Amino acid sequence: MGRCSVQSPITPLRFFQIPRSILLFNHPKVSLPPNSCRQSQPSRGLQHGFCKRTSLCTKAVLSEISSQKQYPKVAAESTGPIPSIQLLQVVEIAAKTGAEVVMDAVNKPRSITYKGLTDLVTHTDKMSEAAILEVIRKNFTDHLILGEEGGLIGNSSSDYLWCIDPLDGTTNFAHCYPSFAVSVGVLFRGKPAAAAVVEFVGGPMCWNTRTFSAAAGGGAFCNGQRAHVSGTDKVEQSLLVTGFGYEHDDPWATNIDLFKEFTDVSRGVRRLGAAAVDMCHVALGIVEAYWEYYLKPWDMAAGVLIVEEAGGVVSCMDGGKYCVFDRSVLVSNGVLHAKLLERIGPATGKLKNKGIDFSLWYKPENYRAEL
Amino acid sequence: MGRCSVQSPITPLRFFQIPRSILLFNHPKVSLPPNSCRQSQPSRGLQHGFCKRTSLCTKAVLSEISSQKQYPKVAAESTGPIPSIQLLQVVEIAAKTGAEVVMDAVNKPRSITYKGLTDLVTHTDKMSEAAILEVIRKNFTDHLILGEEGGLIGNSSSDYLWCIDPLDGTTNFAHCYPSFAVSVGVLFRGKPAAAAVVEFVGGPMCWNTRTFSAAAGGGAFCNGQRAHVSGTDKVEQSLLVTGFGYEHDDPWATNIDLFKEFTDVSRGVRRLGAAAVDMCHVALGIVEAYWEYYLKPWDMAAGVLIVEEAGGVVSCMDGGKYCVFDRSVLVSNGVLHAKLLERIGPATGKLKNKGIDFSLWYKPENYRAEL
Repeated sequence: MGRCSVQSPITPLRFFQIPRSILLFNHPKVSLPPNSCRQSQPSRGLQHGFCKRTSLCTKAVLSEISSQKQYPKVAAESTGPIPSIQLLQVVEIAAKTGAEVVMDAVNKPRSITYKGLTDLVTHTDKMSEAAILEVIRKNFTDHLILGEEGGLIGNSSSDYLWCIDPLDGTTNFAHCYPSFAVSVGVLFRGKPAAAAVVEFVGGPMCWNTRTFSAAAGGGAFCNGQRAHVSGTDKVEQSLLVTGFGYEHDDPWATNIDLFKEFTDVSRGVRRLGAAAVDMCHVALGIVEAYWEYYLKPWDMAAGVLIVEEAGGVVSCMDGGKYCVFDRSVLVSNGVLHAKLLERIGPATGKLKNKGIDFSLWYKPENYRAEL
Repeated sequence: MGRCSVQSPITPLRFFQIPRSILLFNHPKVSLPPNSCRQSQPSRGLQHGFCKRTSLCTKAVLSEISSQKQYPKVAAESTGPIPSIQLLQVVEIAAKTGAEVVMDAVNKPRSITYKGLTDLVTHTDKMSEAAILEVIRKNFTDHLILGEEGGLIGNSSSDYLWCIDPLDGTTNFAHCYPSFAVSVGVLFRGKPAAAAVVEFVGGPMCWNTRTFSAAAGGGAFCNGQRAHVSGTDKVEQSLLVTGFGYEHDDPWATNIDLFKEFTDVSRGVRRLGAAAVDMCHVALGIVEAYWEYYLKPWDMAAGVLIVEEAGGVVSCMDGGKYCVFDRSVLVSNGVLHAKLLERIGPATGKLKNKGIDFSLWYKPENYRAEL
């Protein structure tokens, strides 16, 4: 908001990192090797994401490899017997089919029920999930599916588990407040293999969508163009985002404290209200990191893969190895991960010491997960 | 994010208030008497804003009159010797001219300087302000103008004072994070007479704008359609938004506490990062209220008029009479104002008792303001 006094002294002009991280490549070619040229260092020459400065790029890649070595990959090693391009196609169609249901509803009255005191669900959540289920079951009759609204259905002996959030950010949707999203991720033996998130942006008078997608090892894309995390490596130059769940207990209070701490030392902490959207914004490079306690697989399965495939890093909030059945997540652009954990890790450790349950939230019985 | 357990019990379905508050009238006819039929009660029949239920509307109007009686109007009683339609036209052209500069910059590298440790300013802020100034001075050669970047220029004996924020939400702009805005308000003898805010929504891959405008006594409009605040009258059913300034002192810490309190008792508190945008979102009915300490006239002059003309209420954060030279603001849909002040008022009172300065921030010398 620019709250300087009128005559504030101005420090010398300097060119700053471009937070635009869309690389102007073509649509995903998931069979190609992972992108080896990433925009990770502030540079005027990299605004279009092309590698004009080889030394910088090499440095960036080395820096990323270094930062990612500390945090195990969350992506599946392969998409299993189903080719990644096929899995990606179905996951995208499923998310877009759900999004059509949501788009049809944005200007209509909401019929709302409550799951808790402030945890809303609308008729649209349920309609969107039904539409997504139809797409998945039509393509893969024997897969296991975990939907936010409908729970677990399908074959527990399948290697594939679909995690569906038919309307992530229902409170925002109920208020016509952007953003919210449809999020669909599919796991192969417990690890994310393909993902799609359709984000609703703009709001009344200018609704629009933006589609994020990723397949394990194939990079992340936004509206068909390569997406990449930012290269910001200083907390004081970062824009962050977090979320607060419906349970107002110790982790909730701890995260209010973290919100305060990071608001104090960064450029700001945003609170937008939809986990999948916040993660995609990390992948897009418009914020540097996102964290939250108390998430579910349907909130995270798609988003974590998209962030990782965009060059970012994923861990639990104590810095430990992450899987989508965990209860907390920290995603970042990678280069900031360790610095953020200097504050988030100990705070989470204290919660563990107090006996807060950080065991896996839920894993379908008999589902074979190689975590 | 819908963090219920899979088998959560569902409470009975009920139809809920539609937060859509756009009334489908034509573009502002500022010479008409103020709109006397407002959507203030939850009703399935009012989704298009037309008064299908006279009794409900009458009740709504009475409720609003009642709530607004407690808080003095911030709008000027008239637009003075300049017809309101003319003032509105120039203010809209000025804001849109600035917005063209900003839109031209959204996909280009940013050149950033700092006014403080985290208070950014870009070349675009300055270019936008220059473009806005040109429009104003071409139309009104003898008016006084207060710009965020350029300070005070013009004729101090003029009854008209223009307040310009050429890029509200510069940090968001620097990160390509929506939303940010161009905000232009013009005061007549110290009170808002006409206002326009062009909001940038969407972000990379889907930039778009939405234009809010208002003239004193003529209603508020969004993209040419009548806008109105929501009718939500319960804090626990409200979505709120606040902001945190660059000074991390007592008021900042107090607002972190308020953020925590309201996150606990409402559907959520959003933190988006642009004061003018947040106020326009109250006017649009997608959030119920917004508050912040440490704002400047250029942050507020347009937004407060747009909220009030959309049926909302404006006060200082202690509940006292507000003017645009004040240092804090609470805007709401009106029906929630007193309930929000039950928490915000005493917290602000404590700051006053501690000696925090809540006198007028700045009023141009010799400028005649009837506050």
